[in-house]
Amino acid sequence: MSPQRKLLLLGTFVHSKTQQDLDFLHKAGIAVDAHGKIAAIERDAHDLSEVKARLLAKLGWDEAEVDVTEAAEGQFFFPGFVDTHIHAPQYANAGIFGKSSLLEWLETYTFPLEASLKDLSKARRVYARCIRRTLSHGTTTATYFATLDVAATNLLADLCLSMGQRAFVGRVCMDNPDVNPAYYRDASASDSLEKTQQTIDHMRRIDPGFDVVSPILTPRFAPSCSAEAMTGLAELHRQTGLPIQTHISENPGEIQLVAELFPEADSYAGVYDKFGLLTPRTVLAHAVHISEEEADLIAHKKSKVSHCPCSNTCLTSGPARVRWMWDKGIDVGLGTDVSGGYSPSILEAARQAAMVSRHVAMAIEEEKEKERAKLTVEEVLYLATRGGARCVGLEDKIGAFEVGMEWDAQLVTLNEVNDDGEVHDEDDDHGFVDMFGWETWGDRVAKWVYNGDDRNTKRVWVKGRLVHRRK
Amino acid sequence: MSPQRKLLLLGTFVHSKTQQDLDFLHKAGIAVDAHGKIAAIERDAHDLSEVKARLLAKLGWDEAEVDVTEAAEGQFFFPGFVDTHIHAPQYANAGIFGKSSLLEWLETYTFPLEASLKDLSKARRVYARCIRRTLSHGTTTATYFATLDVAATNLLADLCLSMGQRAFVGRVCMDNPDVNPAYYRDASASDSLEKTQQTIDHMRRIDPGFDVVSPILTPRFAPSCSAEAMTGLAELHRQTGLPIQTHISENPGEIQLVAELFPEADSYAGVYDKFGLLTPRTVLAHAVHISEEEADLIAHKKSKVSHCPCSNTCLTSGPARVRWMWDKGIDVGLGTDVSGGYSPSILEAARQAAMVSRHVAMAIEEEKEKERAKLTVEEVLYLATRGGARCVGLEDKIGAFEVGMEWDAQLVTLNEVNDDGEVHDEDDDHGFVDMFGWETWGDRVAKWVYNGDDRNTKRVWVKGRLVHRRK
Repeated sequence: MSPQRKLLLLGTFVHSKTQQDLDFLHKAGIAVDAHGKIAAIERDAHDLSEVKARLLAKLGWDEAEVDVTEAAEGQFFFPGFVDTHIHAPQYANAGIFGKSSLLEWLETYTFPLEASLKDLSKARRVYARCIRRTLSHGTTTATYFATLDVAATNLLADLCLSMGQRAFVGRVCMDNPDVNPAYYRDASASDSLEKTQQTIDHMRRIDPGFDVVSPILTPRFAPSCSAEAMTGLAELHRQTGLPIQTHISENPGEIQLVAELFPEADSYAGVYDKFGLLTPRTVLAHAVHISEEEADLIAHKKSKVSHCPCSNTCLTSGPARVRWMWDKGIDVGLGTDVSGGYSPSILEAARQAAMVSRHVAMAIEEEKEKERAKLTVEEVLYLATRGGARCVGLEDKIGAFEVGMEWDAQLVTLNEVNDDGEVHDEDDDHGFVDMFGWETWGDRVAKWVYNGDDRNTKRVWVKGRLVHRRK
Repeated sequence: MSPQRKLLLLGTFVHSKTQQDLDFLHKAGIAVDAHGKIAAIERDAHDLSEVKARLLAKLGWDEAEVDVTEAAEGQFFFPGFVDTHIHAPQYANAGIFGKSSLLEWLETYTFPLEASLKDLSKARRVYARCIRRTLSHGTTTATYFATLDVAATNLLADLCLSMGQRAFVGRVCMDNPDVNPAYYRDASASDSLEKTQQTIDHMRRIDPGFDVVSPILTPRFAPSCSAEAMTGLAELHRQTGLPIQTHISENPGEIQLVAELFPEADSYAGVYDKFGLLTPRTVLAHAVHISEEEADLIAHKKSKVSHCPCSNTCLTSGPARVRWMWDKGIDVGLGTDVSGGYSPSILEAARQAAMVSRHVAMAIEEEKEKERAKLTVEEVLYLATRGGARCVGLEDKIGAFEVGMEWDAQLVTLNEVNDDGEVHDEDDDHGFVDMFGWETWGDRVAKWVYNGDDRNTKRVWVKGRLVHRRK
């Protein structure tokens, strides 16, 4: 990436300090260097011009060499969202799933659409739209499943890079002829591996340091892969250090299928472990029905879980237990799982994580455990940012505002209701989160989490580059 | 209401034919007379000018006396939504509920806000915003709980009438000194009844036929009312025929409280029945934990249920079983239950009804029953329109497009993605429902249900009057 103009961001900043707590920085400023890195942070100044002066003096920067963005009263900067599980090709089907559950849904809706994206003009339409929409919803990092097709997968990587979204792009491996449809599968394990290598080579050409776009090894899920393919991908991981993504224990029918296909393994997680796929760089999507032993194994291997609340409900997969996974010591992030989940928004995923945690709570008798199962606004925002960053191994770079991290962020605005009950700029649509003026900052953030949408996200930056703006 | 200009609406119309099926009228037109009534419907013409000519000829209307609204290709007219349970004063708290459940939530968040709305300038701000937001989300009929305050309740009625929203406005009765806080309760049963009468008198003055705004008798819920107040309200219902609204069986703690307060009744529904409040014009909100016997009693009395999926999840009340209530023969509509529910949108309530039905399904073992429990897109849209209309006794007037019904409707638009993956008019924000052109009409509607918001609702009419428009 070529150096950019330096940035000064001034105003209020909100981010996760811990899993339980948000930090609110008022009358604050962040300086971002020409490589998109946070160079300095100042807070609690008398006013914004004092913050600016302090930052410039501290860094020895000249005002002429920086672009200044000032958040208005009531606006705030928030870390960009991390989507740890999204199928870019399925974006075109968002909202279309009928009454299906997983295996039937794959056959009816998903494989035909994915297969059709070998048509590159179709792939370009769908991928461009998917990236544009997720960026506009504040997703600065997305962990994508693409399709089997090498050229279309490379195109997705190209588009992420040119549109400026930080992304992990995975060419999907599925070579088991007994499970995958004839029209949509790899010819063999070696075909899976060779084609994966072609997408790695492509991404190394377009982004040599994998600074913005990185390949990710992607066995679709155990039933779709031969032992040889999984073993080969694990070997590739050991050679390259590249991350891995797959699905686990989403649906009872799928779990039954895994047990039938891998009778020698003692669990679904055990299958992945056996083939060397449970690593600290592995993202496991769903994990709805994992046993105590599987959770312990995943925690021990330091593998991560992508929680996909919307999808898990839409496809009646089941309610995953985030508190329980946290208690086990597993790192958890959020996934939209488009189009098993209908929404491209991680804010919506955060909201639904709160809702699903309440469904988990409602099924618990014991009062204290019931109470603990519920996730707070602060906790679901942690999942959406720092939790996701840990899942994809970028916890030192993104997910929060700290010196040395990169500026992946969004500027959030809300409506301020005037004395007549009207909002300013009714024509410039800022969404429908209405502030009456008596809310605490905690209330403001809660209102945003529960009723916010892409209209509230006015600016989005990745690595210091402005990648989305809304009037 | 003074006569208005006649209307011709031309294009595609979608509405519920039955609980299970949508009817799609293409190349169609609807003529609306000067009183807001649907005078004629034509469909399956060669083109829209033919529809127009047919309608004018059939009715003997002159083109000069009608206003024509033509839906563009891909847009469609849909019946306005019916919100069968919403607390207007609580709008200001939408999204603020922490980890609370019902009784604690009432004390902490709700009663203080409601009490504060005796300040009429504050009430005006909150009510105007609530009506504006719900109209913009396509809610043409709202069944409101107001507060104890007569003047503020009358103000809510005034605002609904002037802003053009069809509404039932209920002054809340709560006179039990052992349950309600000292700062927010009626002095006595007779105080409850007198103040209710004052709001009825006011609404009779401003809308003598209750054509747009009607009073609704509103015992908050059994624990908050004395036997005398409930008996008095039931008597008032028998004298006036006015509808009734209350809450039932939302939360285990509340049910326990009812059992303690009314030891002689054999159930929560039994309490209402004993005092004469279970009538065909009664809307019971929630009904999460009602027993088989209570459901049979409610069905027998032809009372209605307002299903509030968002609130039931937010406050961990429980997942209500719509299919089961339908099987019992109970009419069900949707309620946002702002601010137990965070969203002012009935489209969101429909979406959440689909999601909650899947949580109900996930808890069922038996395969066929599990499948049946899930609600389809068609069914949740029925709940949002015709189902709601039946709940509030307006099934002959609103909720669908039939000759003799009134024109309560919305015009819906969706994004059409071009060859480059861009949408037209990126600046004129039409929401984030993206159509790629290969979707069936069923798919289009499903995409709207799952990702639609107020941006998709371009025009809203009540009784033929245009009450909301968005560019």
